[in-house]
Amino acid sequence: MVFKKRTRVDLARKILLEHISPIERRERVPIKDAWDKVLAERIVSAIDVPDHRRAAMDGYAVRAEATTGASPTNPVLLREGVDCIRVHTGSPVPDEMNAVVMIEDTIPAEGGEIAESSGIVEIRSAVHPNKHVSTVGEDVCHGDTVFECGHHLRGCDIAMLGMIGISHVQVYARPRVAIIPTGSELVPMQSEPESETNKIRETNGIMVGLYVEKWGGIPVYKDIVIDDPDLIEKAIRTSADCDAIILCGGTSVGARDYVPGAIESLGSLLVHGVGLSPGKPAALGMIDMAGKTVNETEAMPVLSLPGYPVACLVALFEFGCPAISKLARMPLMPDRLMRARLGAKIASKIGYLTYTRVQVDGGVAHPVMTSGAGILSSVTGSNGFVVIREALEGLDEDDEVDVIWIE
Amino acid sequence: MVFKKRTRVDLARKILLEHISPIERRERVPIKDAWDKVLAERIVSAIDVPDHRRAAMDGYAVRAEATTGASPTNPVLLREGVDCIRVHTGSPVPDEMNAVVMIEDTIPAEGGEIAESSGIVEIRSAVHPNKHVSTVGEDVCHGDTVFECGHHLRGCDIAMLGMIGISHVQVYARPRVAIIPTGSELVPMQSEPESETNKIRETNGIMVGLYVEKWGGIPVYKDIVIDDPDLIEKAIRTSADCDAIILCGGTSVGARDYVPGAIESLGSLLVHGVGLSPGKPAALGMIDMAGKTVNETEAMPVLSLPGYPVACLVALFEFGCPAISKLARMPLMPDRLMRARLGAKIASKIGYLTYTRVQVDGGVAHPVMTSGAGILSSVTGSNGFVVIREALEGLDEDDEVDVIWIE
Repeated sequence: MVFKKRTRVDLARKILLEHISPIERRERVPIKDAWDKVLAERIVSAIDVPDHRRAAMDGYAVRAEATTGASPTNPVLLREGVDCIRVHTGSPVPDEMNAVVMIEDTIPAEGGEIAESSGIVEIRSAVHPNKHVSTVGEDVCHGDTVFECGHHLRGCDIAMLGMIGISHVQVYARPRVAIIPTGSELVPMQSEPESETNKIRETNGIMVGLYVEKWGGIPVYKDIVIDDPDLIEKAIRTSADCDAIILCGGTSVGARDYVPGAIESLGSLLVHGVGLSPGKPAALGMIDMAGKTVNETEAMPVLSLPGYPVACLVALFEFGCPAISKLARMPLMPDRLMRARLGAKIASKIGYLTYTRVQVDGGVAHPVMTSGAGILSSVTGSNGFVVIREALEGLDEDDEVDVIWIE
Repeated sequence: MVFKKRTRVDLARKILLEHISPIERRERVPIKDAWDKVLAERIVSAIDVPDHRRAAMDGYAVRAEATTGASPTNPVLLREGVDCIRVHTGSPVPDEMNAVVMIEDTIPAEGGEIAESSGIVEIRSAVHPNKHVSTVGEDVCHGDTVFECGHHLRGCDIAMLGMIGISHVQVYARPRVAIIPTGSELVPMQSEPESETNKIRETNGIMVGLYVEKWGGIPVYKDIVIDDPDLIEKAIRTSADCDAIILCGGTSVGARDYVPGAIESLGSLLVHGVGLSPGKPAALGMIDMAGKTVNETEAMPVLSLPGYPVACLVALFEFGCPAISKLARMPLMPDRLMRARLGAKIASKIGYLTYTRVQVDGGVAHPVMTSGAGILSSVTGSNGFVVIREALEGLDEDDEVDVIWIE
């Protein structure tokens, strides 16, 4: 097997996303469990918020007409409990009143601010109708569309749902993502490889799974598959209980790299080999499922990521994140960025979108020099990525860069 | 009660953070549950990674000395299985070999790439010792400090822990944050306020709780407290099972705003009134607990946030996020930023850090015009905040702005 050709990252991503349909499964959940999920229904308010007129300030509710001409030198005198009513921010404005005079613009009857007994109140400012009054429906009106179907629910949105009296909502189910590590050299993470000569612990699976979860998917951890084309095909075919498949390892062009071939025989291999460093051997495809998937779709996206952990991670960020977000209907959030000055020159190869690892400290991005795709400590010892575009051949010391915070 | 004085937001935050000590409670968890938590121990590797020499390329493992002078025109011939051994990326390099010749630089014995039988292999490139070999400890050496105590564990870090054979780690417990809504006008979110005249549903609690959770805390939801100074003091005193308290409502200077006074009588009111719009009435303090808290500290931070939902949210972002992050020892992550052009002029008041709500669409930030601190739909209808510094009096149409993505 050879690379089909080296595809630019943005084009490869576009090809993949064009083949992905967002999932349709829905579920009804209490609103507090709807946080960070995506609405599968339009939300129309059945009530007005507020549903009664409220004071927007502490002071006295009045009939605006009664305050005409009032000023500090020429106050209007009103009978408390009759012509004016003491109100606090948020408290209801009585039906017969239509405005609020701020407490600062009054001289209360007696006992200062806390007087609630009957007496004469000096009103030292004129107000027009609805002054300092929250009117009915000021926030939301009965019949308003509060959220469209497809809206991603944030903390403030959950409060809004509660405010309009909604206890449960329909949301889209999170996509299930099968994670299949491949490689004859691997043993499960929990085992003691020392007891098995020349084996290494499989850890790409948990890494991919944690990011899948972060991006709104449900990781479905599958067993390690050895480098055997039939077993790899079988592992893919038996993942029909999922919405997408991510394989780690076996994606290059060596004699034991059976994953791209398996994708080709079970569906279509859209991309094999990308202009990404590290991450070049990544492959992307669709598996024919003839409607047998949990989502009843005809085809399921499959990502074949390199086994080297840094390459795996970088390819996951570039392809896994947008693919899962599209399946889950989650918005693609902007990156967390730190602006920094490069502490040293960094090299990159023209034609490759290059992820270099840096540690940002006091506004300076210090390159983490170990650069191998297999050296996970180069990432775990960094707090950011500097991503160098394909057209550039590295960056110079002191260049201003946007550093992507590694979450 | 009057505002102590209007404190600048950055100063108020600094004063609060100076009084907060990160929590000391620890717990031992399986590594997959340690994700997004903070290490409470230093991690030193007990093993080398890799613990054996591995091929970094597909090809033939050789003794480097045996390839001296090899070139396409003058290949060296080696006996497969004797002088050279077929290897794949990641597979062990036999003890007697010290380099790998890439498959592309060989002509295998027979049957092309997949030949593994004995025969003569043409080596067409000379290699030096360790060429294309991952040496023992190349990623991590036995005895290396992999993570310092206090390191925030990301997905890639969990993979690293697994790689060095660690199954459980000590992490700091997440801070417990009591959330106390106050206000005589409030009824629980689940109830039907229509049945109780002039009441409104309490929804700041769930909103605050969801963000607390997002920032690494555990929300502890307390019952609504009516506007009564004794009941408010009691609610604060009975929150000693937590590490911090957030109250919503009752924080201004009106007759029914009892929270700042309660803080003052139970400890110290550090700040009351901040240069934040919306969010001006926020108060910050410390409650004396005489070592009786779950964390055995002498004092517990308390945040008194406005009851108006937008003001509550903005004050929560400015004070709650850094306070909880410091308690939890979580790094303060950079914001998710969108660069945009302002679609219309927006106003702000000098001396106030002003949060304006915008909807970003195609690189243009359109101000969401309803600006009241009580109008939650102004946030739920926005995807970003444009934050205007204290020294400015608004921003002009077409100004370039950094918009903070609302999560």
